[in-house]
Amino acid sequence: MGERSISIHVIERLTTYLRYLKSLPDDGTASVSATKIAAALDLNQVLVRKDLAEISSGGKPRVGYQICSLIEDIETSLGYNDSSSAILVGVGNLGRALLSHKSFRETGVRIVLAFDCDEAEIGTDCCGVRIMATEKMADLCGRLKVHIGIIAVPDTAAQEVCDMLVGCGIKAIWNFAPTHLKVPDDVIVRNENLAASLLILSQQLRERLS
Amino acid sequence: MGERSISIHVIERLTTYLRYLKSLPDDGTASVSATKIAAALDLNQVLVRKDLAEISSGGKPRVGYQICSLIEDIETSLGYNDSSSAILVGVGNLGRALLSHKSFRETGVRIVLAFDCDEAEIGTDCCGVRIMATEKMADLCGRLKVHIGIIAVPDTAAQEVCDMLVGCGIKAIWNFAPTHLKVPDDVIVRNENLAASLLILSQQLRERLS
Repeated sequence: MGERSISIHVIERLTTYLRYLKSLPDDGTASVSATKIAAALDLNQVLVRKDLAEISSGGKPRVGYQICSLIEDIETSLGYNDSSSAILVGVGNLGRALLSHKSFRETGVRIVLAFDCDEAEIGTDCCGVRIMATEKMADLCGRLKVHIGIIAVPDTAAQEVCDMLVGCGIKAIWNFAPTHLKVPDDVIVRNENLAASLLILSQQLRERLS
Repeated sequence: MGERSISIHVIERLTTYLRYLKSLPDDGTASVSATKIAAALDLNQVLVRKDLAEISSGGKPRVGYQICSLIEDIETSLGYNDSSSAILVGVGNLGRALLSHKSFRETGVRIVLAFDCDEAEIGTDCCGVRIMATEKMADLCGRLKVHIGIIAVPDTAAQEVCDMLVGCGIKAIWNFAPTHLKVPDDVIVRNENLAASLLILSQQLRERLS
């Protein structure tokens, strides 16, 4: 795949295939077909076949893919082997939920440190990640070469935290606060708009019920 | 807007406009232009103008929109006045983060009850929402006419909880567990794939840095 980017829909499907493939029993030689994957995940089999052909050359007619090689090919195409580090700011309920989120561990992005301003939390661990005082951020980020920052603080503190992250050299921000962040041009922001997501579901429901 | 559905991108932008408009000082007569909104949110002004024209007829040349009417029009188009109820299952860190998420309160979807199997939590409140024993779900859902269920339990319990929700008459499921849920055809599932979202950000970063 090299530097070619793939769309969010493909990434979502690939992570879903991966989760399914890892749930299958595998003795190292077992194989699986696009048809079987499509049936198990309620997806269109033409779509699954196309996705897999894009990222793996291991498919054989009437046999399918070796499970273990297909897992490897999907992981490579998703950049799982290209591990990068992230820091998280705000160890409240959301921050703790993100630190304990099992499927992040599979993505190759590792949360290496968390920051909070609550004295009682500082110096403790959450899900194996050390919680540090926010004032230590600049020094630690410089030494760790971290480029991803996750904002899990209340919206009133989000811009201030964002400015701190940018000041520490963070180049990509995953923002869970419902706030529009101002950043320099060379910083990427991905907003996780959970309210919009819930609204879409309720709209679909309304259409279905009407 | 009636029953016409709008795309996720438009919904995301409309919720962003709404948040911005509500942050502006308003004496009931103040107005705002698409140009000003676009500049404040770093968006293309043609896009903002088009979005607003779609959902409001209150725009005037060289003046813009009355802030309070525009807020009303956006809320109507998003279905905020058509409040619906949801229940949440799993009051761990993620569940608590969702219960305390401020921007849900603005969406018109209200989480009315939470369920957990932890005896210590049952009967207590979290952010004003009562936590009940999972066994009470069927009885309570029937009486409350709830149609939306939020799954915030670990992946190993997600399908079981999903089956319970479906059995209780839930027609729309917002799933945070990294699991593919099996549901009947008349039930809508929206998966919140946070791992895919983090991966996309890290891929964008890698492209930017390379």
